[in-house]
Amino acid sequence: MHSLELVKPDGRALTLYARGPIAPVADVPSPFREPLASQAHLRWHPLRGEWVTYAAHRQDRTFQPPPEYDPLAATVDPERPTELPAGTWDVAVFDNRFPALGGGGRAEAPSLHVPTAPAGGQCEVVVYTPERDTSLGALGLDHLELLLSVWADRTRRLGERDDVRLVFPFENRGVEAGATLHHPHGQIYAYPVVPPLPARMAAQAKEHLAEKGRGLLETMIDAERRDGVRLLYEGAHAVAFVPVCARYPYECWVAPIRPAAQFGDLDDAQRTDLARALKTVLLKYDGLWRRPMPYLMAWYQAPSDGETHPEAHLHAQFYPPYRTSERLKYLAGTELGAGFYAMDALPEDKARELQAVEVTLS
Amino acid sequence: MHSLELVKPDGRALTLYARGPIAPVADVPSPFREPLASQAHLRWHPLRGEWVTYAAHRQDRTFQPPPEYDPLAATVDPERPTELPAGTWDVAVFDNRFPALGGGGRAEAPSLHVPTAPAGGQCEVVVYTPERDTSLGALGLDHLELLLSVWADRTRRLGERDDVRLVFPFENRGVEAGATLHHPHGQIYAYPVVPPLPARMAAQAKEHLAEKGRGLLETMIDAERRDGVRLLYEGAHAVAFVPVCARYPYECWVAPIRPAAQFGDLDDAQRTDLARALKTVLLKYDGLWRRPMPYLMAWYQAPSDGETHPEAHLHAQFYPPYRTSERLKYLAGTELGAGFYAMDALPEDKARELQAVEVTLS
Repeated sequence: MHSLELVKPDGRALTLYARGPIAPVADVPSPFREPLASQAHLRWHPLRGEWVTYAAHRQDRTFQPPPEYDPLAATVDPERPTELPAGTWDVAVFDNRFPALGGGGRAEAPSLHVPTAPAGGQCEVVVYTPERDTSLGALGLDHLELLLSVWADRTRRLGERDDVRLVFPFENRGVEAGATLHHPHGQIYAYPVVPPLPARMAAQAKEHLAEKGRGLLETMIDAERRDGVRLLYEGAHAVAFVPVCARYPYECWVAPIRPAAQFGDLDDAQRTDLARALKTVLLKYDGLWRRPMPYLMAWYQAPSDGETHPEAHLHAQFYPPYRTSERLKYLAGTELGAGFYAMDALPEDKARELQAVEVTLS
Repeated sequence: MHSLELVKPDGRALTLYARGPIAPVADVPSPFREPLASQAHLRWHPLRGEWVTYAAHRQDRTFQPPPEYDPLAATVDPERPTELPAGTWDVAVFDNRFPALGGGGRAEAPSLHVPTAPAGGQCEVVVYTPERDTSLGALGLDHLELLLSVWADRTRRLGERDDVRLVFPFENRGVEAGATLHHPHGQIYAYPVVPPLPARMAAQAKEHLAEKGRGLLETMIDAERRDGVRLLYEGAHAVAFVPVCARYPYECWVAPIRPAAQFGDLDDAQRTDLARALKTVLLKYDGLWRRPMPYLMAWYQAPSDGETHPEAHLHAQFYPPYRTSERLKYLAGTELGAGFYAMDALPEDKARELQAVEVTLS
């Protein structure tokens, strides 16, 4: 993997990644001239026992821009700069101009009747490809392998920072999932604390490992492979399946079979097979109703806290917001209010639908 | 409060409530003839450490019926029965025909590689008024007081059951919040376990009470009253405010000032003032953009587990899905994937918007 580190005129970092050598970049563009001055701060939610981040400058952020302007495409006209230069890059990562965390400003946290703190951490945008009219699943397997390596590189770089505890790559795909730009891209949130859900999952995994002497997700993967009925992909080193305890009708998990704590712990064979498992899920989603399936893709890995995490097992969870081709699954009272998920479909039935979608990996 | 218990032809319970005497009902209607045979079961989610309920029969549930048919209106034509009889009732509660929990069927939980259990508990529909073209906030204060008494009655009755641990009244209002019927109504989920979020809140409150000797929400309410900047209503016995740690731009909390563990613990003065606080929030919401504000309204109270709960403090939390009049706040990667909420508005600014909406209570 080749990479080239650059700085935008407004001070934000940009890193280009490619499988081959990257040509020098003369002009690093940005749609923004003024330096970023983040005012984000954290407030403690005493009743839920969690931090909430407040970034009031985000109200102005880019929202469904007109189709002719794609801020994630390469700049063609220097008078209308985008976020990215033309060039030989395959994947690009830059600092989010509207970060919910970090951003470099020296934010004073306000004085309130709950604890507050400046919002450390970092928000990055990961542009999967220079091409706009494509999708993650349409990229070649070698491109997906590159992306897995990019996530590893970002995890390492962000994880070294004092104000980062967990690196969380994710993608909101489709307007139904809250995406505001159509160009294929994801995001990385580098959190200054381990957020509630990864913390909960780590606690569960630790307890299981201590009790059973074997990893929790590893144990679940063993069982899914034995059962077979919810499997979508089974390679030598990676699997994809609808989990037995799915909370969304078309929920899928993608994981290496042998645990890796973080992206950087994957070996070559694991990375190659994980790209195949990932592509299988993406193609099955888009093939199911022959249209792009919206989803949230969330990647869980070990915290970057200097500790070893034998309980951690890198994996992705996909949450598509549809329950049938026409009907959205709304998160409503029981889910958002009580945290208790109600499913009106069986994972086994939804897995069968996805199993029936034939895909070709290349 | 008067009440009349009835049984529908398909075996489901119906209770009518009114401020005055209720005339006998000759025919109890139901749009359904066949007895309800629930097949819901719970599956344990090992990685999140929580139960998920599966009710595959719910796929067929009523979804945005044509405007001429309102299943929550009183039956006019016996050939086209609704869920409710004509009569002198003000509020009606009946068993949900498409329950995510309970339902009376003898469900066998399937044998899987995670723990499973039959889905105990109960799902009820609470029809706020016989009138269709109104809203909760438009009802009179005496009607809202009645509703608070109805929630108390349901909590008592459901809480006595062996398979109920927490009674959770809520309302999904508006299509944006997932509502499928426009007639003003809410729901009650009587859970067979204390769900994750109420459990988390109870743990936080217990810890605070043990450390400080004073209730957590009580402490927050004291501070909100002192600060004043986020207050929407302050009566002798109840308050409404945008919490300092709001996770939704227009989030509001409504609570009695002195803690009551459950609806049934409210005294008359508290109930009267709580109705005023509730109505204030509802009218401010609908007045803000002069259109019905969608929201999730969630009522938190102590578990019905036979224990005393000095840490519990009954209150409602409202989560409207809009961040401005035109823009929805999507729950996306950071919220749904990490449980870490990112706000692009300050609670103080949103409170000011709501404070500026004048309301008349009656």
